Amino acid sequence: MIRVEHIGIAVKDLATAEETYAKLLGSASYKREAVEREGVTTSFFQVGPNKVELLESTSPDGPIAKAIEKRGEGLHHIAFEVADIRKEMERLRAEGFQLLSEEPKTGADNKLVCFVHPKSANGVSIELTQEILG
Amino acid sequence: MIRVEHIGIAVKDLATAEETYAKLLGSASYKREAVEREGVTTSFFQVGPNKVELLESTSPDGPIAKAIEKRGEGLHHIAFEVADIRKEMERLRAEGFQLLSEEPKTGADNKLVCFVHPKSANGVSIELTQEILG
Repeated sequence: MIRVEHIGIAVKDLATAEETYAKLLGSASYKREAVEREGVTTSFFQVGPNKVELLESTSPDGPIAKAIEKRGEGLHHIAFEVADIRKEMERLRAEGFQLLSEEPKTGADNKLVCFVHPKSANGVSIELTQEILG
Repeated sequence: MIRVEHIGIAVKDLATAEETYAKLLGSASYKREAVEREGVTTSFFQVGPNKVELLESTSPDGPIAKAIEKRGEGLHHIAFEVADIRKEMERLRAEGFQLLSEEPKTGADNKLVCFVHPKSANGVSIELTQEILG
């Protein structure tokens, strides 16, 4: 694990949350990106070597909408940057962690991603993320 | 805001969670520290420029015990490193954020800390943290 790549925060209204986090972090969101397959619109903030990702659901029954219904707005997941996502997935499976997909998927921000089941990690939804090069 | 200093995770049993996170992150906890005033025992992991902090309650009615009772184990707070905590607190107050203390407090890991109320930040408990020098 190289570093915390980003922290994902589930929000109801992206535009309002972007204003709040621009004030909080002292700099504006540098991009918005829709991830249609996941049913979310995301907005990214840079904080030194790390990012904050705000996530708004694009449908009332998407995973972010459900998370907010269950626990309210707030921290949703941590993403750790890894050098080789397939190798890391293999290592974690061998250690007994449950992964949410057999293969990495394409996520926001030009990344390959895979999630570890929160049950494997004390209730924390953990994303592994590797930049797609070239 | 300089970077994500650490991510705080509320756990029921510190010893078991330390084993899980050592496997997950690929390296062992580098220190345990009790913060008596807050009623917690903490355990820290380094991940590149960032840290993961596991928090176990030392009393059944401490803030971490209450958080777990309400929402289960999981992500508890994000701490952002700042260069001058008093200046940052002043800036955030002027922007309308509600802070949980008038003055910085002494936290774990040789830091001055102050929390932003989750109501001010879309349900996220945000810690400002400045290293105590000298």
